[in-house]
Amino acid sequence: MGELCVRSVLVTGANRGIGLGLVQHLLGLPNPPQWVFATCRDPKGQRAQELQNLASKHPNLVIIPLEVSDPASIKAAAARVEELLGGSGLNVLINNAGIAKPISLEKETLETMTQIYTTNTAGPLLLGQAFLPLLKKAAQGSPGSGMSCSKAAIINMSSIAGSISFPYTWEEVLFTSYQCSKAALNMLNKCQSLAYKEHGILCLALHPGWVQTDLGSSAGHMPPLTVDTSVKGMLKVLSSLSEKDTGTFLDWEGKVVPW
Amino acid sequence: MGELCVRSVLVTGANRGIGLGLVQHLLGLPNPPQWVFATCRDPKGQRAQELQNLASKHPNLVIIPLEVSDPASIKAAAARVEELLGGSGLNVLINNAGIAKPISLEKETLETMTQIYTTNTAGPLLLGQAFLPLLKKAAQGSPGSGMSCSKAAIINMSSIAGSISFPYTWEEVLFTSYQCSKAALNMLNKCQSLAYKEHGILCLALHPGWVQTDLGSSAGHMPPLTVDTSVKGMLKVLSSLSEKDTGTFLDWEGKVVPW
Repeated sequence: MGELCVRSVLVTGANRGIGLGLVQHLLGLPNPPQWVFATCRDPKGQRAQELQNLASKHPNLVIIPLEVSDPASIKAAAARVEELLGGSGLNVLINNAGIAKPISLEKETLETMTQIYTTNTAGPLLLGQAFLPLLKKAAQGSPGSGMSCSKAAIINMSSIAGSISFPYTWEEVLFTSYQCSKAALNMLNKCQSLAYKEHGILCLALHPGWVQTDLGSSAGHMPPLTVDTSVKGMLKVLSSLSEKDTGTFLDWEGKVVPW
Repeated sequence: MGELCVRSVLVTGANRGIGLGLVQHLLGLPNPPQWVFATCRDPKGQRAQELQNLASKHPNLVIIPLEVSDPASIKAAAARVEELLGGSGLNVLINNAGIAKPISLEKETLETMTQIYTTNTAGPLLLGQAFLPLLKKAAQGSPGSGMSCSKAAIINMSSIAGSISFPYTWEEVLFTSYQCSKAALNMLNKCQSLAYKEHGILCLALHPGWVQTDLGSSAGHMPPLTVDTSVKGMLKVLSSLSEKDTGTFLDWEGKVVPW
């Protein structure tokens, strides 16, 4: 059990919140990745300023434009990463980009339902497809048997809000479209784990905790966890993953989250 | 514990498979509903012939055109049902319409993901919203406390394929978009059960079994259950539902299905 040690990792939605925190902590590891690919919709925009500042200090950080709901954008990003990796594979794909709309069940529409599903669920499916050749290459190019993040893994950033059995005591149902998309993401993670097992790719659904981000506080409450605490915990969890964990749903402390 | 006894019920996707079976068995109950609303996309088409034949023999069966992925069509159907009910409520809404595409994980696209989600998950949400006033009316107009199908209920036709914890042993992952949509439907059912509890509306996710329908045999296998066996079992389950069942996931024999 030690620090996470990977050669290459890609994080979507990396310009703020948990995505930005992941990039910062990955760059600060004792043995940082040779490649950290950080994707966001608009790398040149105001909201990517912190990411740009980081990139100016870390030559192993590459910012790549990516809209996870656009298949053409995903293909272009995968082609760019393949080019940069120059023949080697991608160890870890972190499907972190996600959106939420805090509205009551009665206010949900066909548009909110499909928009949030497209980004939170279909996006991770398309990214898994697009990066599959690079993930397979990383798995094949790693010594030894078994599964781990040092070989090849897809990390799907889920949420306890996607846990159907969670004993909700909220006064109001405010995240139906988000909750449905995350329950579906958990199922996608299961399907990916089954389909990609033969390729040696580990697939994990990960609950980051209730974190102080724009999304975490979008219903007007103050979440208990800082991005730092959540990200440190998650990277420790990632470093300890093995074959038995593929297809499961863990939280930032490594505890199993019920479906 | 007896036969299901409801004054009015609406079944979507009622022109074939399980939907048609539900309509037939509802009409054949010792004490049949005063209103059976059977919806399908094209009531005048060839694929609605059996439903048309039934309607010519049963004046309590009304066929209503409905495309569950079209909000305007849903609103029009709700207005028509309200008009026919003439001031009384709707006891049971059965969200049965569903689609599936047996394709490998690698063949799924943004289009298959959103198309199947729209019909299987967003549709039931929109139907719940549109029929909420009539369901509330039925709950308010029924004597006694507690919840039951004789008062007001939403039945979401789910599938064990939407159970994330199900120990899949399939050689190939062929229903990712369908499985994601049904896991999300189970979450929707949970959200509806929480949001509609105050109105006295019971919400159930129901697995019909693996049934001999076009959908059930779409991967080329022969399902073990006939429509008759499945529907008889489900109507028995519906007749026995009470408050403790709202938000749960049961199969056609009344057994709890794990998430």
